[in-house]
Amino acid sequence: MVKKAVPDSTRRSARSRRAIYDAALALVGEVGYPRTTIEGIAARAGVGKQTIYRWWSSKAEVLLEAFTDLSAQAAEAAEAAARPGQEKGGEEGGEEGSQGENGIPDTGDLAADLKFVLRATVDELLDPKFDIPARALAAEGVVDEQVGAEFVTRLLEPQLQLYVRRLRSAQEHGDVRPDVDPRIALELFVSPLAQRWLQRTGPITHAYTDTLVDYALNGLAPRRPS
Amino acid sequence: MVKKAVPDSTRRSARSRRAIYDAALALVGEVGYPRTTIEGIAARAGVGKQTIYRWWSSKAEVLLEAFTDLSAQAAEAAEAAARPGQEKGGEEGGEEGSQGENGIPDTGDLAADLKFVLRATVDELLDPKFDIPARALAAEGVVDEQVGAEFVTRLLEPQLQLYVRRLRSAQEHGDVRPDVDPRIALELFVSPLAQRWLQRTGPITHAYTDTLVDYALNGLAPRRPS
Repeated sequence: MVKKAVPDSTRRSARSRRAIYDAALALVGEVGYPRTTIEGIAARAGVGKQTIYRWWSSKAEVLLEAFTDLSAQAAEAAEAAARPGQEKGGEEGGEEGSQGENGIPDTGDLAADLKFVLRATVDELLDPKFDIPARALAAEGVVDEQVGAEFVTRLLEPQLQLYVRRLRSAQEHGDVRPDVDPRIALELFVSPLAQRWLQRTGPITHAYTDTLVDYALNGLAPRRPS
Repeated sequence: MVKKAVPDSTRRSARSRRAIYDAALALVGEVGYPRTTIEGIAARAGVGKQTIYRWWSSKAEVLLEAFTDLSAQAAEAAEAAARPGQEKGGEEGGEEGSQGENGIPDTGDLAADLKFVLRATVDELLDPKFDIPARALAAEGVVDEQVGAEFVTRLLEPQLQLYVRRLRSAQEHGDVRPDVDPRIALELFVSPLAQRWLQRTGPITHAYTDTLVDYALNGLAPRRPS
C-alpha cells in the first residue's frame, strides 16, 4: 500500500505474500479445495510453513485474501484499460476515487455503467488465472456451508453491495423505480452471468451481458403508456 | 409407466430401480460425486453390481436418471397439490397434458404461471431429499466440465426449454416484446434463484421469486409513456 521508503523487510514480506497468493491459487485450481494444505502452499511458494502461520490462521484465510488481491488486480487493470478516452462524470469525488477498489462508475448513464462493469467481469471470468481457482473455491462452497458462507461474506457480497450503491444512486436520480429493492434487482443481471459461468449453461460474452442489462432495466413486457 | 397387467419381473425391476435411485442419491449426498461408486450404490441398494451394469453404463448415468425421476416425482406432487381449485386455462390440450412432465401452466396470465412454477421450484430446492444430492452433483459440475455438460444437457436445459416455450407463447399473445430472446430472458428470474440456492447468497422464499417475476416482466426503470 505505502509506496515510499519501503524497508527491505517490507519488500521481502510483499514478495513472500505474492508468492504465497500465487501458490495458493495455483494449488487449489489443481487439486481442489479439500486437498489444498498450508504445507503444500508453503512448499510451492518456497517459504517455511511458519511464514504462512505468522500471517494467516487457515488455508481458507490465505485463499480468501489471495482472491481479494486477484480481484483488486483485475479491477486495476480494467480501470487502467478504460482510462484513456473514458469520460468519467459523477458528482461525488469520493465515489470516483473508490473505483480502484472495484467501484462501479457513476456517469449518470445507468445502463452504460452496468454494461461497463459487467463486461469487465466477463473478461475476468474468462481468464484462466481467475477461472480455475475460483471454480475450485466456488464448488467447495456449494457443498460445504461454512466455506460457502466465508466466500459469500468476504468476497461476493461486498461486490454485490457496489451494485446496491449504484442502483440506489439511480433511484435518487429517477432512473430506477423507488419501490424496487436494489439487493434483489441486481440479481437480474448479475446472477445470469454467475450461473452461465458456474454451470456452463451458455456462452459468456459482452453482447450477452449488454442484453441482460437492457432486459433488466426495460423489462420483458411491452412498454405501454402508464 | 404402464399401469395394467404388470408381470412379476417388471414389478421386481421397478422395485430394484427405485432402490438403486434412492441409494445413488443418498450416497452422492453423503460422500460426494468422486467417491460415489457403482459398487457402493449396489451394496446400499441391496442388489448385485451386475443388476446396475445391466441397465446403466456408469455412475453418471445412474445419477442423471435418479435426478430425472426425482424431478418428475416433485412435479407430480406439485401438480397434485395445485389441482384442487386450481383453474387451468390454456388453449392447447397437449400442452396442458404435458404438465406432469414438468410443464409450465399456460393460463394466459404469464406472471401468475411463472410465479406458480418458481414457487414449486423453491419448495423442491428447500427439500433435503433434493437439495443434498443435487448440491453434490452441481458442485462436481462446477469443476468437472464433462460432468457439468451432462448435467446441463440432460437435466437443466430441458427444464429451461419449458420456460422458452412459455415465453414464446407469451410473445404470440403480446405479453412479451417480440424482439426479446426467450432463452436469455428466462435467466432473469431462473438464475437469481439458482445462484441463491447454489451459493447461498440469500434466503429462498415464495415472496422472493414473486418479486423476481415482477421485476423481470416490468423492468427496473420507471415506466414512461412510450
